[in-house]
Amino acid sequence: MRKQLIVGLLCIPFIAAAQQDLAKYVKPIIGTQKMGHTYPGATVPFGAVQLSPETDTISYELNGKYNGPVYNYTAGYKYEDKTIVGFSHTHFSGTGHSDLGDFLIMPTQGKLQLNPGTADNPKNGYRSAFSHDQEISEAGYYKVKLEDDQILAELTASARVGMHQYTFPKSDDSHIILDLMAGIYNYDDKNVWTYVRVVNDTLVTGYRQTSGWARTRTVYFAMTFSKPFKSYGQKNYDKKQAYRGFWGKFDQTKNFPELAGKNLRMYFDFETAEQEKVKIKFALSPVSQENALENMRAEVPGWDFNKVREQARESWNKELNKIQVNTSEEDKVNFYTAMYHAFINPTLYTDVNGEYKGLDQNVHKAEGFQNYTTFSLWDTYRALHPFFNIIQPSRNNDMVKSMMAHFDQSTIKMLPVWSHYANDNWCMSGYHSVSVVADAIIKGVYTGDPEAALAACITTSNRRDYEGIGEYIDKGFIPAEKSGTSISNTLEYAYDDWCIAQLAKKLNKQDVYETYMKRSANWNNNFDPSTGFMRAKDASGKFLPKFDVMSTHGQGFIEGNSWNYSFFVPHNPVALIEKMGGKQKFAARLDTLFTMHLPDEFFADTEDITREGIIGGYVHGNEPAHHVAYLYNWAGKPWKTQERVRKILKMQYKAAPDGLGGNDDCGQMSAWYMFSSLGFYPVSPGSDTYSLGSPAVKSAVLKLENAKTFTVDAINQSDKNVYVQKVLLNGKLITNQEIRHTDIVNGGKLTFYMSSKPAK
Amino acid sequence: MRKQLIVGLLCIPFIAAAQQDLAKYVKPIIGTQKMGHTYPGATVPFGAVQLSPETDTISYELNGKYNGPVYNYTAGYKYEDKTIVGFSHTHFSGTGHSDLGDFLIMPTQGKLQLNPGTADNPKNGYRSAFSHDQEISEAGYYKVKLEDDQILAELTASARVGMHQYTFPKSDDSHIILDLMAGIYNYDDKNVWTYVRVVNDTLVTGYRQTSGWARTRTVYFAMTFSKPFKSYGQKNYDKKQAYRGFWGKFDQTKNFPELAGKNLRMYFDFETAEQEKVKIKFALSPVSQENALENMRAEVPGWDFNKVREQARESWNKELNKIQVNTSEEDKVNFYTAMYHAFINPTLYTDVNGEYKGLDQNVHKAEGFQNYTTFSLWDTYRALHPFFNIIQPSRNNDMVKSMMAHFDQSTIKMLPVWSHYANDNWCMSGYHSVSVVADAIIKGVYTGDPEAALAACITTSNRRDYEGIGEYIDKGFIPAEKSGTSISNTLEYAYDDWCIAQLAKKLNKQDVYETYMKRSANWNNNFDPSTGFMRAKDASGKFLPKFDVMSTHGQGFIEGNSWNYSFFVPHNPVALIEKMGGKQKFAARLDTLFTMHLPDEFFADTEDITREGIIGGYVHGNEPAHHVAYLYNWAGKPWKTQERVRKILKMQYKAAPDGLGGNDDCGQMSAWYMFSSLGFYPVSPGSDTYSLGSPAVKSAVLKLENAKTFTVDAINQSDKNVYVQKVLLNGKLITNQEIRHTDIVNGGKLTFYMSSKPAK
Repeated sequence: MRKQLIVGLLCIPFIAAAQQDLAKYVKPIIGTQKMGHTYPGATVPFGAVQLSPETDTISYELNGKYNGPVYNYTAGYKYEDKTIVGFSHTHFSGTGHSDLGDFLIMPTQGKLQLNPGTADNPKNGYRSAFSHDQEISEAGYYKVKLEDDQILAELTASARVGMHQYTFPKSDDSHIILDLMAGIYNYDDKNVWTYVRVVNDTLVTGYRQTSGWARTRTVYFAMTFSKPFKSYGQKNYDKKQAYRGFWGKFDQTKNFPELAGKNLRMYFDFETAEQEKVKIKFALSPVSQENALENMRAEVPGWDFNKVREQARESWNKELNKIQVNTSEEDKVNFYTAMYHAFINPTLYTDVNGEYKGLDQNVHKAEGFQNYTTFSLWDTYRALHPFFNIIQPSRNNDMVKSMMAHFDQSTIKMLPVWSHYANDNWCMSGYHSVSVVADAIIKGVYTGDPEAALAACITTSNRRDYEGIGEYIDKGFIPAEKSGTSISNTLEYAYDDWCIAQLAKKLNKQDVYETYMKRSANWNNNFDPSTGFMRAKDASGKFLPKFDVMSTHGQGFIEGNSWNYSFFVPHNPVALIEKMGGKQKFAARLDTLFTMHLPDEFFADTEDITREGIIGGYVHGNEPAHHVAYLYNWAGKPWKTQERVRKILKMQYKAAPDGLGGNDDCGQMSAWYMFSSLGFYPVSPGSDTYSLGSPAVKSAVLKLENAKTFTVDAINQSDKNVYVQKVLLNGKLITNQEIRHTDIVNGGKLTFYMSSKPAK
Repeated sequence: MRKQLIVGLLCIPFIAAAQQDLAKYVKPIIGTQKMGHTYPGATVPFGAVQLSPETDTISYELNGKYNGPVYNYTAGYKYEDKTIVGFSHTHFSGTGHSDLGDFLIMPTQGKLQLNPGTADNPKNGYRSAFSHDQEISEAGYYKVKLEDDQILAELTASARVGMHQYTFPKSDDSHIILDLMAGIYNYDDKNVWTYVRVVNDTLVTGYRQTSGWARTRTVYFAMTFSKPFKSYGQKNYDKKQAYRGFWGKFDQTKNFPELAGKNLRMYFDFETAEQEKVKIKFALSPVSQENALENMRAEVPGWDFNKVREQARESWNKELNKIQVNTSEEDKVNFYTAMYHAFINPTLYTDVNGEYKGLDQNVHKAEGFQNYTTFSLWDTYRALHPFFNIIQPSRNNDMVKSMMAHFDQSTIKMLPVWSHYANDNWCMSGYHSVSVVADAIIKGVYTGDPEAALAACITTSNRRDYEGIGEYIDKGFIPAEKSGTSISNTLEYAYDDWCIAQLAKKLNKQDVYETYMKRSANWNNNFDPSTGFMRAKDASGKFLPKFDVMSTHGQGFIEGNSWNYSFFVPHNPVALIEKMGGKQKFAARLDTLFTMHLPDEFFADTEDITREGIIGGYVHGNEPAHHVAYLYNWAGKPWKTQERVRKILKMQYKAAPDGLGGNDDCGQMSAWYMFSSLGFYPVSPGSDTYSLGSPAVKSAVLKLENAKTFTVDAINQSDKNVYVQKVLLNGKLITNQEIRHTDIVNGGKLTFYMSSKPAK
């Protein structure tokens, strides 16, 4: 007994030393200003609940401008704002379009006001002024003083439960508002239906249905209060209300426990002593009120706010410690905040009992995996999912299984394009889930049936009536008449088809391999030899006469002009270089891209980024050129890759609210940061290689799920020493500027020797 | 072996002889004209599917007149109409308000028209002219020739599946319309949401959510075609549509398999050979698309329309044979049609796997019972549920269990008032579920926990904020200021409280018994000795100065004036008679009721009935006076009961489309008919006695679930011999004008000796 005790005591400090408090470097506030579109609130890794403040809920005018002012509020919060409307439970991180913002809660005191009020005059509604001086945003915890009523608001979360703690001044007239009309990207008729059941004086359950970016979406909830409310009520803002005879039987505005309608706001009244804390647990479920309650009971059975906060931080530390970097304090903030933002999405979409709502709107049980949602695949196939294949292989395996479940439930028979909450909004070009699927299988991460996965990829790529796929198959390009993003689609389909070919090769399907290798060359069909740029064609195959290499809109692209998109052949840089006139010319073009000036008229074309989000004509704030800095490696000038990458790392990621030059895009920008900081990048997911760049860290230890470690050392690292003199993998010189996935997951050491001079 | 075979052969004719084809007497068309509000389509006993033609779907203007023209269409079909809009799957039978009409299907040919068109010009839409000459309506089967396109439509059903058979002329251009906007009592915003999934070229699933009389209602469906459609499409009539980016990806109007919106109409295209039959199976579920599919596979696995039709008829014959009556052919039609209408509701609300949607909007599993819905209890507590206690005790047991489940799921903690589809619309006065619960327990039908049932009754009766219950408890009456139906409520609460007292007595709860017996005397508080009528009081306890015994509205009543309602003390006629001045005066008042003239101005006040629905001032078309003809028995003039009852039977029930003088009210009118035809009636359910009247049948054999039989014989029966000379129960003279429930269920014989002269 004594001996065991001693062993136990000895072990504890060892474990504690191994796991650092890296959460302290996480600053969720990074990216909340300007275009980052991140949120500052509380969530746990890949959590289903994202409990975060809203600073505005401007209505989206359906027939108004597409990217209207509400575009700023995709994450619900803008650092520039002076008021907080309330705290809601679901948020995208870094997206360029939005939805969510479910179940807005706000504590108030004094005269009950059910309208949110305005930013100019918060006291005319339930919203409140706040200042960043009295705001703390940490991994898994958010705190702010609501100045209007001097209420301290604190938030934390478990995977499926948001926990609120409100410290009130003394009053007979304290309220908690539950605004069931509020939502992000709200517009008329977005709120389809709301049902609420006040089960008793501490428990409320219900659901909210919306039709927004997700067309058919229901979120169920269970909400408990730490103390009984003394009374409650609602206001129904519906223009027309159901069967009026019904309303006469009870007074349904006050203490009536069964509510339903399209537009409801509720309130709960309390008496509070001075500095009394009223806590709320708010659980979500995609399936039912009962599952929400079960989630709550399983994850947060008690009322200890600090314990939930500590568990949230602990869950972050567990993930963050998977990579321990040695770098400057500022870069640690950048690195671990990037890791935090990368591990926010996709989000869990399974209840504790394994049930989830499928794309077919049926309830399914996830057997042998956790179901995930929020797949922003046009962004995340590039670096986020490849990053997961190294650091989160189990979760990425489940994500691929989630995509396969989506496919199985799809009547359209497509893998997800941009899916969230049992819907696909089909946003952006390509069918990039095939890249994620192929990459996970090729890298040995996926444990499902690879044959079925290949079949799903093939079926997806042959959905002829989707975004020009039929023309693409028949002609090898998409006529401009058929799609406004004809070139983006052709180039991205070609890359995706190459992924399918790689997967087919892995599974020894030679015929499929050949078919898709042929399709993967379709990028050639949009290449205009006369200009050397990718250029739109009409149905007859002629290039369109009006052509502007600087412009995005009307030229067949999305989120990137021809300057950026013309480099989009990630799967075959060698052929592209040849097409563009050889290595010298190609490198010179890359130089031009990074040094040219993008006039304002064309910058306006470039969505989702700030002026800081571009370097010359290179648009880092959007994704299509994310691999481009690494292409110098193929042009025989790896030192240019090295200097460009280091410059991008410095210029595009800063440890400040406005530190992100463009949307974080569900972690893609952050994954780029981590890969590039570590010195390598997956230029073409679906390949098992990573192209080398210039590490920004002094060293890093990657702790893999297979218990092996992979270490990156940068000898002579400094801000000036951005050039790599030589690279050793486990002591052996690398001459081809790449490492393989197995080099990483088998464990080992990658040693960069840094210098201030390029190794030409 | 040989011996067994012979036994088998001998048995078959015996069984066949025992079960008659009584379905031939069922004329569902009875009551479809004027005010009966029945529907002519196909259903099985207590079936979840009621597949029936709609002849109009006029929109209900929420801010318009409450009982607008659409009031005529509560069952979707009016015999007077000349066109059929289509065939939908859910219908109330005989109600005075409505909902339902889900999933309207219509076959057409030629140019596709997705609008329903108008009754004046059916050819300008998908509706069609029809005539009763080419229409057949039977138990479980409906057939009509759609004249516009010469399509023969046939309908049949199982419990949860509607089956359609459309015989088309030859055409390349045949269509089946699925109108997901159509519904009964539609108005703006009633359609909350619709989701459709075209799984393959013969299977379509989805759901429809409405907010109408049921505030929060979802019906799931699965629909299969007997042959693949060649193409399909939709039109979305929503004023505003969700996320427009979405719509660009596919052409969603044609052959697009995932649809959602508030207002959708779909079509399916076929080539048809001459006289080709296209069949549809359409299954419903309260729970999920998958359950709907499971229901379909379990109930109607094949495509043999005639087999389903025969099974439906067989299921009716099985129920109808529970009472075999010997009477005129016309009265057999009246009797078995009444039985048919009585056995249509409540309706099954459980899937084949036992799941159902509860009042709490959660999915529940019905353990050990079938869950039912559509409880029009203000009507049906009177005679329908008592009738079930004799002829359908197992089902009534399940119905009480369904009510108890409703109570358990209710946050309001009330037993159902008027509930359907996991909602309560709280229509009409009283809390009459307590009568049904008490009656079922007192008569030994309920197998659940009687203590819990009593507790539910008590809790229901103490919901102080419901319709004046608080005032009723405090003051013994409801002030007119508090409720527009203050007297109806007080009188009915008093009766209901007497039921609770009887149940308490049965369970030996003396204190509860005394409390509720006291409450049951509250009818006295609205009795105005100065006029001898029930009269509204103000909060101070003074009778309102403006009093009109002929008027309903504004006088504190619903569906009955003071003349009718003043007799509403079914649980204590002796006290009422004393209050009204003794037996002579009382009998004279009854005479006046049956012979007075109700001027047009007051008739207009009387809802839900035709002029034929009244006899003098006695309003049989509404329910409050349904027991009144039997009160002569307490006034010492049973021969008056006998002649009144026979007159009502003759006048109010005719074997014709306009044969019902008022709404059938979910079978209450029909149950009155059957009881009274058999010679007895439950004046006060909750008592185990039946008051004797005058049988209209020559004889009847009731085949009980306990395998016993109860026989009614009417010696010297004729239209003139309406008076009863004497009655023998198992040969023993009855002197108190009543029999007990045990007299029936123990089996035996009730013999009436009829005469043309009253036995004074």
